[in-house]
Amino acid sequence: NGILVKSVAEYNDAVSNAEPGDIIKLANGVWKDAELVFEGKGTEENPIKLTVEEKGKVTLEGASNLQIAGDHLIVEGLVFKNGFTPTNAVISLRKNKDEMANNCRLTECVIDNYNNPERQVQDYWITIYGKNNRIDHNHISGKKNLGVTMIVGLDTKDSRENNHIIEHNYFGLRPTYGNNGGETLRIGTSHHALENSNTLVASNYFDRCNGEHEIISNKSCQNTFKYNTFFECTGTLTMRHGNETMVDGNVFIGNGKPSTGGVRVINEKQTVINNYHFGLTGYRFRGAFVMMNGVPNSPPNRYVPVIDSKVNNNTFINCDHIQLCAGADAERSQPPATSEISENIFYHETKSNLFTVYDDISGIKFENNITSKNIETGITKGFVKSEFELVKNEQGFLVPVSDKFKVEISPNIATKENTGVDWYSKNDETVALNSGETLKVEPGINTLFDVTKNSKPGDILELESGGEYLLTKTAKIIHPLTFKTSGSEKATILFERMMAFEIQNGGSLSLDNIIFDGAKSPDYAGNSVISTSKNSMIENYKLFIDNCEFKDLIVNHSFDVLRVAKGTFADTISIQNSRFKNITGHIAALDKETDDIGAYNVEYLIMKNNTFSDIQGAALRLYRGGTDESTFGPFLEMDHNVADNVGQGKRNKYDASVSLYGVQEIGIKNNIFKDSKALNMHLVVGEPIVQISNNNFYNSQGLTVTGDQKYTVENQWSLNPNFM
Amino acid sequence: NGILVKSVAEYNDAVSNAEPGDIIKLANGVWKDAELVFEGKGTEENPIKLTVEEKGKVTLEGASNLQIAGDHLIVEGLVFKNGFTPTNAVISLRKNKDEMANNCRLTECVIDNYNNPERQVQDYWITIYGKNNRIDHNHISGKKNLGVTMIVGLDTKDSRENNHIIEHNYFGLRPTYGNNGGETLRIGTSHHALENSNTLVASNYFDRCNGEHEIISNKSCQNTFKYNTFFECTGTLTMRHGNETMVDGNVFIGNGKPSTGGVRVINEKQTVINNYHFGLTGYRFRGAFVMMNGVPNSPPNRYVPVIDSKVNNNTFINCDHIQLCAGADAERSQPPATSEISENIFYHETKSNLFTVYDDISGIKFENNITSKNIETGITKGFVKSEFELVKNEQGFLVPVSDKFKVEISPNIATKENTGVDWYSKNDETVALNSGETLKVEPGINTLFDVTKNSKPGDILELESGGEYLLTKTAKIIHPLTFKTSGSEKATILFERMMAFEIQNGGSLSLDNIIFDGAKSPDYAGNSVISTSKNSMIENYKLFIDNCEFKDLIVNHSFDVLRVAKGTFADTISIQNSRFKNITGHIAALDKETDDIGAYNVEYLIMKNNTFSDIQGAALRLYRGGTDESTFGPFLEMDHNVADNVGQGKRNKYDASVSLYGVQEIGIKNNIFKDSKALNMHLVVGEPIVQISNNNFYNSQGLTVTGDQKYTVENQWSLNPNFM
Ligand SMILES: [Ca+2]
Ligand SMILES: [Ca+2]
Repeated sequence: NGILVKSVAEYNDAVSNAEPGDIIKLANGVWKDAELVFEGKGTEENPIKLTVEEKGKVTLEGASNLQIAGDHLIVEGLVFKNGFTPTNAVISLRKNKDEMANNCRLTECVIDNYNNPERQVQDYWITIYGKNNRIDHNHISGKKNLGVTMIVGLDTKDSRENNHIIEHNYFGLRPTYGNNGGETLRIGTSHHALENSNTLVASNYFDRCNGEHEIISNKSCQNTFKYNTFFECTGTLTMRHGNETMVDGNVFIGNGKPSTGGVRVINEKQTVINNYHFGLTGYRFRGAFVMMNGVPNSPPNRYVPVIDSKVNNNTFINCDHIQLCAGADAERSQPPATSEISENIFYHETKSNLFTVYDDISGIKFENNITSKNIETGITKGFVKSEFELVKNEQGFLVPVSDKFKVEISPNIATKENTGVDWYSKNDETVALNSGETLKVEPGINTLFDVTKNSKPGDILELESGGEYLLTKTAKIIHPLTFKTSGSEKATILFERMMAFEIQNGGSLSLDNIIFDGAKSPDYAGNSVISTSKNSMIENYKLFIDNCEFKDLIVNHSFDVLRVAKGTFADTISIQNSRFKNITGHIAALDKETDDIGAYNVEYLIMKNNTFSDIQGAALRLYRGGTDESTFGPFLEMDHNVADNVGQGKRNKYDASVSLYGVQEIGIKNNIFKDSKALNMHLVVGEPIVQISNNNFYNSQGLTVTGDQKYTVENQWSLNPNFM
Repeated sequence: NGILVKSVAEYNDAVSNAEPGDIIKLANGVWKDAELVFEGKGTEENPIKLTVEEKGKVTLEGASNLQIAGDHLIVEGLVFKNGFTPTNAVISLRKNKDEMANNCRLTECVIDNYNNPERQVQDYWITIYGKNNRIDHNHISGKKNLGVTMIVGLDTKDSRENNHIIEHNYFGLRPTYGNNGGETLRIGTSHHALENSNTLVASNYFDRCNGEHEIISNKSCQNTFKYNTFFECTGTLTMRHGNETMVDGNVFIGNGKPSTGGVRVINEKQTVINNYHFGLTGYRFRGAFVMMNGVPNSPPNRYVPVIDSKVNNNTFINCDHIQLCAGADAERSQPPATSEISENIFYHETKSNLFTVYDDISGIKFENNITSKNIETGITKGFVKSEFELVKNEQGFLVPVSDKFKVEISPNIATKENTGVDWYSKNDETVALNSGETLKVEPGINTLFDVTKNSKPGDILELESGGEYLLTKTAKIIHPLTFKTSGSEKATILFERMMAFEIQNGGSLSLDNIIFDGAKSPDYAGNSVISTSKNSMIENYKLFIDNCEFKDLIVNHSFDVLRVAKGTFADTISIQNSRFKNITGHIAALDKETDDIGAYNVEYLIMKNNTFSDIQGAALRLYRGGTDESTFGPFLEMDHNVADNVGQGKRNKYDASVSLYGVQEIGIKNNIFKDSKALNMHLVVGEPIVQISNNNFYNSQGLTVTGDQKYTVENQWSLNPNFM
């Protein structure tokens, strides 16, 4: 009853003839564009199994996918990579709304970077329907396009009270998506929030699942989350909808990484116990622990108030933010009630004010919580200070030790080793900037093009001091590359195409100590020094500009420094210590996501110590449309920049030298604006954090703020800077 | 001295060793990514020649191009196709600014659809520098990306007074580009407008060169255009800059096609004689004859007033518009002076008012012009009416015959046959919608997907009356396809992906008698029934929707009917006799070109006899940014539509049911708006032609117009339409 199949036709034959106990094996090799349906009726004793000839030697590529429907079926060892599903799921535990999988097992399967190249086209990777299915020891890594990685669907009665078990799976890297729809696991939807799902999620390892705020979006009742490890994830296990959730014995490791979070509580009868949190730095909706305010008589798709919930015996080591009554606003006006926070331990080496209380906490009973000596909760009772040490336990966790309590972490806790499969690597293949070799580039025509073309990821292209480089072809940046002048006199790059550099999918760019001169650029509107691919980029990119000079970008109008496209997303754009002079366009207009569905173009934007002079367009335009609260970007930091005659061009439609819309965190300080257009900001979505201080607007329009009016302005001057 | 080379290395060897009289032959086959430099010094008697083993059997593909530099070089027989140049030119008559071609000949070469796939990335196809070069009998067809097809460059002294001869070339189809930069031939630039170029452009055939207003953009002095044929070109031979141009003996054949034009005169000492014009319908800057107003003391890059110019002995048969003092406005306030229009013949079978006079014509001497009896010029003297017949002459032209004059067309006139080469087809390969076979499609899951995938260009997919069709995969429209229900009950199409149809490069779509239902679409913001490719589309597309129904597009917000991407351009979008009900997004937001460099998304937009009800977004948003005057789109016609509760959704950022910006021609009549948002228009660029009549705004915002205030509104009502 072991049947080796070598083609989809043979496979289909085998499936349609399969009897209980049969084992169908996909032959070693690449299965391209294989849309497999695995259906049949096994028995508990004699399931029908789909597996592979040899594990790790069978891959499904191109437009492949799998649908499972029937009873007592086992799928094992399939690897999906180098392609993407043409339908809305890579692996679906149903064939259609009526034919689904029950008592089935999906085990030791791999889905690795199997992404639709269009980051804004949605799919799921695993959709779970039916009942009593077990999803275990799978390796699911690198989802980068729109859509939750794994869902449990409850859209028909036959998928509710399902008793699914999701365990020992390895959920690998999911980078910041830059919009809603980057969750890793969702159980239910708001439409079925009050149905019982009864799903157990146990001992799974979530490794940098950073897609959005919700690593896990719980949207149904009576689910249990146990012994899962969340490693450096910039989000929370969120009880978004539904009641009676049990969150017990999980571990959240932040290691001090930005925006790492823990558990977020909404709704009723939630239990959060025995969890361990370490080095979580996130705040607002990504705090180490967040209990939200609710909406009175909330519709199911808004925020049901917290009642009858219990937070007991959790440990927080060096976690920066505990947020109570979070999200309190005119709509979310109902604080938690008849709930308790008890016997938790809070330790912090340096920070004393961990707790932020946004509304009335009288509905929360605080009891027997313990804090380290330095912590001031501001909450009048239910906390005692205690002296204790941190000791690394045998599992490697730093736990507090005292004779008053004992912090234990279950031996069932997920580790990188005990999850996923052992025959598929969990290592990152990401190459960092500056990690490669240094390649010297001679001055001349297209020398830079040629060396770029032959470079390897991470390489550093070293230009000669004072050298002149002409690009008659655009240098395509297909992997991380650094360009720098060695020596004191910056090399100059000129270019005959509409852009010198084009960052393509997988590329990142660092520019250091170089002059860019627009003199040879074509006489057409819309040139730029750097452009992203005009096609969607599924990989986030990075751009660093340091100590560079951009001058005379004046051939025709709308000559920008950086021109990005819709469907591209930068983790970081950093522009520092650079000079920009005589430019007909913008320095950077990051506003190509005009659909207002919540997408934006960059997470962190940093501009420091730059001078901008005679710029007809804006120094910066940053736009985030829509009203989605699943993400926190963009973050903007502008510090010590000088703008001299910026934004005055008649084509500058932003009517500003810096124009911000929907940016979530804004720090603008120590900047000088002379003879320049305004700084304008439209504040929307959630509660943007806005700090404007020590800026000088001389003979310039000043600050204009529309939208929300919560922001801080300090020390705004209007002094003549007397540039020389 | 005939050297056959089989690789770029062999080629380079041959070139570097070439002696006068040598003939280097590229071996038959495909030369991929061949960047050839052809340099050398031949003599007048013994040139060095680059040719091919057999004409038509050698193609340069991929990232290939050619640079020619030296003396007495001949290039013959090269074919560029299936690729695009990595630099700014396919064939350049220089290697760099100092090393150029002189006394060289480029003959019998072909450049066929050799387009950068990014329509907004610029290149030229042939750049001519140096002196005394002859460019003859080349076939240059299908340019679709940004950038002039052929230029004569004057940027250094050694390229001026060049005596180049451009003759007997075939310039094939250049479709509407939808922005500036779609010229077919440009001689000089505004920077060198007052330099003499002395270029002869003779006996070339321009076949539907429709890129933009300027088929030819003359931008230097002392050039001659003789015996060229302009066949159905939607633009003019434009004397944009520079003086002393001779336009003699050319033929302009419009055949009644929209927007076809003739000659446009600007600047001084221009001579337009002996030209024949037939069936030209264009107006404004694309008239059969246009003499513009100028700017007093104009800078060279604006409009130098017409003086000392002569328009003599030209013939206009069935041409609709003669435009005098065109473009007159506050800036272009100086009418032509010391010029004459004499001895021209104007015949029109039906139209009597051909002449539009925008300013003072006292500076033009009209003398001895002859018109057919029906024509009323409105010009007091210089015209006599005459009776004459039209007779087809032996060349096939319909010429007026009378005993008072004789219209002759030179035997040197360009024809499709005597231009280009005879070994390369001039036939179009474009396939029309509905020109293929009818394929029946069974109802069911993905039956539509499968038949689409196996269809051929022009096929008609016939759906069953009342049938239900589910797409779990997006149907990609890669060539022209029609979907229609046969029978009285419309078939219904549902879809599980973010779009039912995706129009890809080369695709066009016609939908007839079908219901689209959004019920199965994914629960993510941003679905659409039809989407264009998110990547740039170099081919213009067409979309026809007739007699269809779109309903319940309400899964999540921003669910549009049509969603287009930047870098795509529709020749025509026609939506007629259709019903739209219950939709969370827009019907069509054609506003993705936000860079304001003059690009837009559609040329002709037609909405007739539709009903829109309960549409949260806009029925239409149409945007054209920038200030460019090289194009005339978009054109909008809205007639007999009913809007009931349209545009009231809180996410409708246009705050309108119809929102127009920069649209060039607007006809909105016989529409009813009930309980709907406004019709808003921002009028800019040139002089948009705007006619708003017989519209009823009941309990709705009305018409708001910003920008220019030249428009016509007639019969605006506010009556209760009493829908049942
Ligand atoms: Ca979310
Ligand atoms: Ca133009």
